[in-house]
Amino acid sequence: MTFPKKVMIREVGPREGMQIEKIPVSTEDKIRIVDMLSECNFPVIEVTSFVSPKWVPEMADAEEVAKGFTRYPGTEYQCVYLNAKGIERAQATGKFDLEGVLSITASETFSKRNTNLLIEGTFAKMDDRMDTLHAFNIPVHTIAVMTAFGCTYEGDTDPDHVIRLIDRSMEKAKSFGENPDRILLGDTVGWANPVSTEKLVGKVQDRWPDKDIILHLHDTRGMGMANAYIGLKMGVTHYDSSVGGLGGCPFSGAGRAAGNIATEDLVHMCNELGIPTGIDLEKLLEVTEEIERILGRLLPSKVSKGGSLNSYRLTMS
Amino acid sequence: MTFPKKVMIREVGPREGMQIEKIPVSTEDKIRIVDMLSECNFPVIEVTSFVSPKWVPEMADAEEVAKGFTRYPGTEYQCVYLNAKGIERAQATGKFDLEGVLSITASETFSKRNTNLLIEGTFAKMDDRMDTLHAFNIPVHTIAVMTAFGCTYEGDTDPDHVIRLIDRSMEKAKSFGENPDRILLGDTVGWANPVSTEKLVGKVQDRWPDKDIILHLHDTRGMGMANAYIGLKMGVTHYDSSVGGLGGCPFSGAGRAAGNIATEDLVHMCNELGIPTGIDLEKLLEVTEEIERILGRLLPSKVSKGGSLNSYRLTMS
Repeated sequence: MTFPKKVMIREVGPREGMQIEKIPVSTEDKIRIVDMLSECNFPVIEVTSFVSPKWVPEMADAEEVAKGFTRYPGTEYQCVYLNAKGIERAQATGKFDLEGVLSITASETFSKRNTNLLIEGTFAKMDDRMDTLHAFNIPVHTIAVMTAFGCTYEGDTDPDHVIRLIDRSMEKAKSFGENPDRILLGDTVGWANPVSTEKLVGKVQDRWPDKDIILHLHDTRGMGMANAYIGLKMGVTHYDSSVGGLGGCPFSGAGRAAGNIATEDLVHMCNELGIPTGIDLEKLLEVTEEIERILGRLLPSKVSKGGSLNSYRLTMS
Repeated sequence: MTFPKKVMIREVGPREGMQIEKIPVSTEDKIRIVDMLSECNFPVIEVTSFVSPKWVPEMADAEEVAKGFTRYPGTEYQCVYLNAKGIERAQATGKFDLEGVLSITASETFSKRNTNLLIEGTFAKMDDRMDTLHAFNIPVHTIAVMTAFGCTYEGDTDPDHVIRLIDRSMEKAKSFGENPDRILLGDTVGWANPVSTEKLVGKVQDRWPDKDIILHLHDTRGMGMANAYIGLKMGVTHYDSSVGGLGGCPFSGAGRAAGNIATEDLVHMCNELGIPTGIDLEKLLEVTEEIERILGRLLPSKVSKGGSLNSYRLTMS
């Protein structure tokens, strides 16, 4: 139980946050937000989704956003895609560091509703997925498990079920000559608590001590930051979060529920604990302010309202 | 490091929360909120402040609120008072379980600004305070340290300084034949993090293993729930919180900063961890809804938006 030497935070607000916001955001504003985030020195920013505008109309301008933003050295730019068409669209822009992810959902019902496939159906499609990724020369770095802690349809997820899903996904990747080095645990609808986080992370660390864990936490019930702290205590190095706590959860709370944990609150906690993130917190707070201006409402993050403790300490010295 | 067998949550929203809200709340609404909170089965509710309406105009109706609410069996009703006049006013209503508290602020500057006394001045006045309390037959149960983790004027608080302040306050109480059994650690302006919480709580537990600790946490920078979790892990039995996360912090963040941790989020986390609180969470969520209706805005608590996990589990079984 020791803190990691450095934490890698992936900013998912432009993609996951914007997708859920009910207020339409202009392409220009989306581009400006990505550029402002780049100036904060994130290791990874998830910019947009190349999916059908029929399903996700908020992302219909994915190409324009991709063309508009400026790549900063030292930052990886990622996007979501579901099939060859999406990869082609993303690659055509020449702006992305495409990542291969094998994704599986622990809850049958959630999987069916979200992807129209049950778990076995998802595994059955993994050969195609691997072929497609390899056809585009995209290596598979990550096994991702959604609803890894629970979901609103089936309740709590058995951690051993998650381990088995990861195991089978790893085997599949290996049969294609790949050896994914990251495991994403997604608390997709906010079911994790500090004890269940410790349990699942512990089991994954025991089984795959050399792989990096990515904690994708939501704050749906106010435990997101406590869960992140448990991750830090256990040495977890990778976290997903969204600037301002942008976004929400379309699967619970009638659209008012909180979404991803807020990036500035996570960066600030790391700062207070002495764990480097490389991210410029004061610049990040300016991005939150700008997004609040665009959306015309306050976002749920706390440091953006209370101020960073270092900003107070600086006025004292 | 084990969870407590039971947790006692003091609801401070009607007093601390309402005092800070900028929107005037009618006396009738205040009374109805206290009555609704009583139905949730809190062990303690802090109802109002008997202080000068010149300083705290929001509490000018303290007598009317006191007369109006209904005492529920099993709930203690507390109020804030600063002097004999306040005690007289509170006692005259016949509605309160008056608590004797010796309060000290760890930061000289904060103490001066908030009470017009430095630390030595506060100790010098403690004899008078004890005499006053005894004149009204009020026993002293609690030593309370404000800004126990830090403050925006002087930065981080040295935990050994806090231990010394508690020590001197204990000695003072003992010289009056009292032996306070509770120590309140107030993170008055949100400076605590999980590590500093563990450090200070650990020192207090080492020095006074038989006393109850009350954690009074604010969520000013998003770490309130993580700090509460550390308290739970260390066996801390008493917590202050406010329904909906009502309130704010007048000393930082230009009035937009978050206030106390939200009661429903804390109760929900205890539920998820299997720690009894005795509080009816679903009834509590109705109180939040009612306050949001009165204030005309959403409160920052998360479970009130995302729903309790047990409410989802019940629909499954």
